[in-house]
Amino acid sequence: MYSFDELKSMVDSHAEKLFKFNKEPEGLYSPVSYILSIGGKRIRPVLTLMSVDLFGGNVEKAIIPALGIEMFHNFTLVHDDIMDKADVRRGKMTVHKKWDENRAILSGDAMLLLANQMMLHVDDDVLREVMELYNATGLLVCEGQQYDMNYENEDHISSADYLRMIELKTAVLLGGCLKLGAVLAKTSPKNKEMIEKFGILLGLSFQIEDDYLDTFGDFDKFGKSIGGDILINKKTFLLVKALETASGKSAEQLTFWLKANDFKPEEKIKAIRSIFQELGIDKLALDTSRNYFTEAMNTLRNIDVNDIRKEPLSRFAHSLIGRSS
Amino acid sequence: MYSFDELKSMVDSHAEKLFKFNKEPEGLYSPVSYILSIGGKRIRPVLTLMSVDLFGGNVEKAIIPALGIEMFHNFTLVHDDIMDKADVRRGKMTVHKKWDENRAILSGDAMLLLANQMMLHVDDDVLREVMELYNATGLLVCEGQQYDMNYENEDHISSADYLRMIELKTAVLLGGCLKLGAVLAKTSPKNKEMIEKFGILLGLSFQIEDDYLDTFGDFDKFGKSIGGDILINKKTFLLVKALETASGKSAEQLTFWLKANDFKPEEKIKAIRSIFQELGIDKLALDTSRNYFTEAMNTLRNIDVNDIRKEPLSRFAHSLIGRSS
Repeated sequence: MYSFDELKSMVDSHAEKLFKFNKEPEGLYSPVSYILSIGGKRIRPVLTLMSVDLFGGNVEKAIIPALGIEMFHNFTLVHDDIMDKADVRRGKMTVHKKWDENRAILSGDAMLLLANQMMLHVDDDVLREVMELYNATGLLVCEGQQYDMNYENEDHISSADYLRMIELKTAVLLGGCLKLGAVLAKTSPKNKEMIEKFGILLGLSFQIEDDYLDTFGDFDKFGKSIGGDILINKKTFLLVKALETASGKSAEQLTFWLKANDFKPEEKIKAIRSIFQELGIDKLALDTSRNYFTEAMNTLRNIDVNDIRKEPLSRFAHSLIGRSS
Repeated sequence: MYSFDELKSMVDSHAEKLFKFNKEPEGLYSPVSYILSIGGKRIRPVLTLMSVDLFGGNVEKAIIPALGIEMFHNFTLVHDDIMDKADVRRGKMTVHKKWDENRAILSGDAMLLLANQMMLHVDDDVLREVMELYNATGLLVCEGQQYDMNYENEDHISSADYLRMIELKTAVLLGGCLKLGAVLAKTSPKNKEMIEKFGILLGLSFQIEDDYLDTFGDFDKFGKSIGGDILINKKTFLLVKALETASGKSAEQLTFWLKANDFKPEEKIKAIRSIFQELGIDKLALDTSRNYFTEAMNTLRNIDVNDIRKEPLSRFAHSLIGRSS
């Protein structure tokens, strides 16, 4: 079996070669090479390979479709960054900022077609299943992005809506990566379903912890500045839950700060953090994240494979979650 | 065998059902249903079915992938309309105009994934070939759009560049539709190649005639106002050829009108038409279109199938080209 680091360096060395497009028209392909070269942890293809390895499949043969998922993921980033008017990604200029929106739209489209092509590098006997999984997952990711945009324009959304949105936008692709590995390794239908569920639960746990850390994290550990979500009134798990549960004075204060136009950033961050703490939202977020994590690990435990094979994935999951402790 | 009209009504009645998406989030799927419902001749799926029928394949079984190509084509229209800042398509508001750019980007993405899904409705033994054809063709269409955008920002392009651009942007998809039918009908590699070539040549012939008609057509027959391309200095076959061949006084006049900011529309149209006529560009365009048409018909003639089976496609080709006579 391979360790995480071995799989990661396998992914990186192949990405180095496969993601360089010296093709014409240069205007179409250079943004593709650019976005794929500026970093990113490439967790998704590694997860696919870990899943192939878990089920005793051929890891080397799975590299191209695994990188196809990375291509797909980066296609969504290029288009989402246009929609979110984000100028920076991974510390670099986004595609539509470095070039322009038209270039970002069209290069993104080309990336989706290139991802389609990479997904064909699988055995005939799993081709249809792979394509069905890939397309269905891709469509769910689009649905998640649409819900996300809808919710940004709504005053109140329920925490159930929020959880469904992050499931679609983030978690199903993690589940899909892992299921892809299971399909490529030709394991049982039950195992495919379980590893997908594990990925979705892990994704939910991760996203909620991420929301927590943006507000309550330790700058040095988290690696991004704290409070960014608060300053833009981002509908995180924390804010959605707070709006759902606040009443009386804390509801008034929350509304005041959400509507405030003129404030010192530190002041707003401090005030909203206090409201969250009064309402017990900080603890609730951590508990929710941990519950998903526990459920994920139980799911992994129940997969019908020798426990020793589960160790790399289990270790990876533990490294992903619990960054707050 | 089926007539064009029979295939067209088959396409339309299935499109009616398949292109209605009563799915959530409504914000994502309603633009998809909208763009697919506002008309369009749906020539591409009909071509696929004509090709299936030409080679004696099962037409009914080919309807879903044929409509997958229509879905793909409409995806390109939604995104191209954003890039070209076009507000009107088929006499109706474009998606980004009726909703907004974000909606058009994301709905377009969903359409490409929906098209992917529709292309899976084929037999196992042709699945890989269908997906390879579809993805490769799709990527060429993106390349064509990039060249088109590049060329709009360049002062001079060669007529060879122009022809290559329209081949990619328009003709390869027509070739691809026909080749798809041939693949589904499981005909010989030679026949697949020939029917694709026929489609590309027909597409080139059509596009050049279209350029001609926009400037020299008869309003009543053509159905659009004449001279629109001239007013926006659109790089058509006519303008590209004129810039390539003009010298002395006609080159000066051409440059004058291309740079003019303040003019009466009729005056510019009249002047540019005169320059084209002096240079013999009108005749050259018609000749070029007709040469491609002749080559297309020769290609069709050489396809290894009983001549009587070629009649519907031959009739269709004749109805498509020669609108100027």
